[in-house]
Amino acid sequence: MNSADFAAPPEDRSFEDYRAGAVFEYGEIPVTEAEIIEFARSFDPQYIHVDVDRAVHGPFSGLIASGWHTAAMMMRLIVDNFLPKHASLGSPGIDELRWLKPVRPRDVLSVRLSVLEATRSRSRPDRGVVRTLCEVLNQDRAVVMSLKAMNIIACRRPDPDPPPQAGLGGGS
Amino acid sequence: MNSADFAAPPEDRSFEDYRAGAVFEYGEIPVTEAEIIEFARSFDPQYIHVDVDRAVHGPFSGLIASGWHTAAMMMRLIVDNFLPKHASLGSPGIDELRWLKPVRPRDVLSVRLSVLEATRSRSRPDRGVVRTLCEVLNQDRAVVMSLKAMNIIACRRPDPDPPPQAGLGGGS
Repeated sequence: MNSADFAAPPEDRSFEDYRAGAVFEYGEIPVTEAEIIEFARSFDPQYIHVDVDRAVHGPFSGLIASGWHTAAMMMRLIVDNFLPKHASLGSPGIDELRWLKPVRPRDVLSVRLSVLEATRSRSRPDRGVVRTLCEVLNQDRAVVMSLKAMNIIACRRPDPDPPPQAGLGGGS
Repeated sequence: MNSADFAAPPEDRSFEDYRAGAVFEYGEIPVTEAEIIEFARSFDPQYIHVDVDRAVHGPFSGLIASGWHTAAMMMRLIVDNFLPKHASLGSPGIDELRWLKPVRPRDVLSVRLSVLEATRSRSRPDRGVVRTLCEVLNQDRAVVMSLKAMNIIACRRPDPDPPPQAGLGGGS
């Protein structure tokens, strides 16, 4: 599968540019021991993330990155390459986040983003929801983490053909 | 609902200490503008997280924390108070993560942890899976983020009464 590319740069990108079936790849992020420890000291100070000597005897036989650190590194690649710079309206959430393999110092991460669905909102036709399978890969092309993300993205143009309303009554 | 407390301190805590139905509350974490911007510059440099002046005109009418920063702050409370210090064997993942309300500078966060399920592994009776509903609350007791976490935790004692094996054959 070849990586797709957007027609529009991030500055001009909007909901219309996200199409189900498109697959994008971005990277690379080198992972360092110092950054693993720095992130974990602030947010996830378990010994497997901050104590090199003890981590050797732990369940992963060595220091590994906090799963939240892996998610944060993934997000940097998504923000720099995939999301629109102006049209992003936030994310309601994430489903099925899985930490599949440990991320270790000297790993090099990249991300594969597969657009699963792009659906214009019925109630607010100036925006749509994009659902994306996000997979973080290491230098051996093993998937170390995966999740399904939702993003709300503004449309370039209002829907030219909105669905018919069920009735003439009120309602928000 | 009153907050529960563990019988064992984090150093001695093991799978047996996690019981379905128990609810724990921990806090507080004050959120600062400087920390929102610092985290986002590294991992999520969208203007709503790093540019105070522009964020005022954005979809949240002001600077808000990256959702991954909120997750990371939550994790710090979970590591410091809820997880065992030695018996934690990692997490396979997270389900149904929802960012429900914006987190803003000067918010004060706490976490409510409701143990949904604690199930000893059949195949490896030295450990169990704990499923927990994690809710992050702000100073107004509004839930700003929620998710369901899985954690693998080592048992203090091997299962005294393991289920009968289906056969005498091999298998891992």
